[in-house]
Amino acid sequence: MSSIITLTTDFGESSPYVAAMKGVILSINPEAQLVDLSHQIPPQNLQATASFLCESLPLFPPEAIHLVVVDPGVGTDCARLYVELGSLRLVLPDNGIWTWLAQQTKAIPVVYQLTESRFWRNPVSSTFHGRDIFAPVAAHLSRGLEPDHLGPKIHQWQDLPYPEPSQHGAEIVGVVLTIDHFGNLITNIPAAMLQGRKVEEIRLGSHSIRRIESTYGEASEGELLGLISSSGRLEIAVTNGSAQNSTGAIVGDSVKVMLQE
Amino acid sequence: MSSIITLTTDFGESSPYVAAMKGVILSINPEAQLVDLSHQIPPQNLQATASFLCESLPLFPPEAIHLVVVDPGVGTDCARLYVELGSLRLVLPDNGIWTWLAQQTKAIPVVYQLTESRFWRNPVSSTFHGRDIFAPVAAHLSRGLEPDHLGPKIHQWQDLPYPEPSQHGAEIVGVVLTIDHFGNLITNIPAAMLQGRKVEEIRLGSHSIRRIESTYGEASEGELLGLISSSGRLEIAVTNGSAQNSTGAIVGDSVKVMLQE
Amino acid sequence: MSSIITLTTDFGESSPYVAAMKGVILSINPEAQLVDLSHQIPPQNLQATASFLCESLPLFPPEAIHLVVVDPGVGTDCARLYVELGSLRLVLPDNGIWTWLAQQTKAIPVVYQLTESRFWRNPVSSTFHGRDIFAPVAAHLSRGLEPDHLGPKIHQWQDLPYPEPSQHGAEIVGVVLTIDHFGNLITNIPAAMLQGRKVEEIRLGSHSIRRIESTYGEASEGELLGLISSSGRLEIAVTNGSAQNSTGAIVGDSVKVMLQE
Repeated sequence: MSSIITLTTDFGESSPYVAAMKGVILSINPEAQLVDLSHQIPPQNLQATASFLCESLPLFPPEAIHLVVVDPGVGTDCARLYVELGSLRLVLPDNGIWTWLAQQTKAIPVVYQLTESRFWRNPVSSTFHGRDIFAPVAAHLSRGLEPDHLGPKIHQWQDLPYPEPSQHGAEIVGVVLTIDHFGNLITNIPAAMLQGRKVEEIRLGSHSIRRIESTYGEASEGELLGLISSSGRLEIAVTNGSAQNSTGAIVGDSVKVMLQE
Repeated sequence: MSSIITLTTDFGESSPYVAAMKGVILSINPEAQLVDLSHQIPPQNLQATASFLCESLPLFPPEAIHLVVVDPGVGTDCARLYVELGSLRLVLPDNGIWTWLAQQTKAIPVVYQLTESRFWRNPVSSTFHGRDIFAPVAAHLSRGLEPDHLGPKIHQWQDLPYPEPSQHGAEIVGVVLTIDHFGNLITNIPAAMLQGRKVEEIRLGSHSIRRIESTYGEASEGELLGLISSSGRLEIAVTNGSAQNSTGAIVGDSVKVMLQE
Repeated sequence: MSSIITLTTDFGESSPYVAAMKGVILSINPEAQLVDLSHQIPPQNLQATASFLCESLPLFPPEAIHLVVVDPGVGTDCARLYVELGSLRLVLPDNGIWTWLAQQTKAIPVVYQLTESRFWRNPVSSTFHGRDIFAPVAAHLSRGLEPDHLGPKIHQWQDLPYPEPSQHGAEIVGVVLTIDHFGNLITNIPAAMLQGRKVEEIRLGSHSIRRIESTYGEASEGELLGLISSSGRLEIAVTNGSAQNSTGAIVGDSVKVMLQE
């Protein structure tokens, strides 16, 4: 049985935390195939995590178990969960980071609270549940453990509200949702809101963008342009440059789109 | 036979050095399961490496071989070693990075010097023993090579002195040993030194800390607090913030703990 | 059948792009053994990519498939290729990043253009061919797909000119080709050009270097020295320091070597 376990954290790589989790997993299931997704999630940033999961996890095969440890509330009364969304299987803290993915996949969530400490590392520290709870639970699941052994099925959990864009007549108002490694600004405005309409202008702070292209190479070097991102949303980019540097934009900045009436 | 090889280096990821080592290993043992622990060890920092190994390697299963290349003395007369500490097996330079782990595990070290060049890449460069000596040796071990083929058993090696904390009456004096990705300051003061005593105050530079908590969430946002780290030592942290940024502390800074008399 | 797929990109790790590619590969071939080479290639830097591939890929076993996505021209008319260089097999954009490797290995390239969209993800975005074309093609190859199914064999492609050093009498003129994680400056001057001759002086900007050593440890701390890099080229380094910081050099800076007449 193939047993892929993906790892997504905000631990960075200079600290031994990722290494510790890998050791715990491989001690329980030496056959697990560990797949690093990212350990560079912006520290304790729940929205960045939720967005990351939406753009990556649905592409994995159903046999994968997805371990996600971005856990600013570690050690407080934040619960720990095993979540099934259709064929997606996640082990993570109860802070809403999976709820955008639930909305996107439209799957009915099946959620268990992790309470059965016999599947944990012992003793459990108060500051590192990734090593002591999440990693061992993911490893046991990868060996075929049925999730109803992990704790009770629950029907209430923390939600993370998705920042929906709004539309008033010919004006759409959204925000910069994430900024990628190249400095591309990815907004929360879905392609569907623009479909069949002509975009007159995109406004970001004092910047006015009138080019909507299908790919990066089509504007002249250094020019701001709008395009549809690989995740199907409006993106603001600069050919061979960084829209983040050009505009000084940060996550959460307002983006306005004026459609032709 | 499962054959996990972990990799810990200070090579970063923009350079081709990690990739080169992986190629050499997989050429000798295409079935090796490579597990990245970190390539972001602070460059040439032996204490950071020693501390990293203590917090991660003991969690791995015995079948793993741990390749550690932090080697400021590469090409000089620094020897190369294969070290067994109980069930832990390491391949690394003779610069003391494994000796804290020996102290922690209390295992009697069994140490071989790597001298048999038939298990090396040929020719050996003077600046990249990771690719030319350590990686091929680890790969041969992962295929079942007995360590006594690698060179002579030795009984002397470089030590890396551990900075022990001191206690005079009700005052404990330690240092900041490492700083993690979140800016938490991890000291060399073990929980055992505090056990059963009430901490009156922690002093770090001009900062006085009077809160000792069991986890991050219990102080108000931005407040410095002391807690026991996941590695069982006194840690100075800030809820949802960075103690490194708040205090400007660096590795090696003095930390004083005043116990109630 | 072992099925190693290596990944080399300039995507960084805070973005979900690497994770997305891994998901696509594992969905097509859950048995693929993913090996991260680097996701920290300097963004959109073709020369850095070409150099990285030269120093790493030849060390891998022939069963590996090398997926390389550094693709500033994504979505324009930049073609996508499958390239064989002897036993090396690469999947990458047609921007010349593999041509230095061809020169180095002296293999006659066998090149196919990727045109058969039935082996792609559907629909193909205009900005992320890594996920939609390169990753699925690599995954199909790893399952044994014959390359002639991917598209037509071609005989013309983009070249990336290698900056050859020049020699006039006793003076060699080269450039800083790459700078590694430690700040070592690696030039394009091969060891062979220096062999059997005595180096009188190396000039880099206003710096004059008269020490040529065989390894880092032989100069005094902080002193600039020349040595032969692990890739067989002239390297400028500082013992326990960064030649990049000491000299302020950047990639492309001129390096002159004066040989004894």
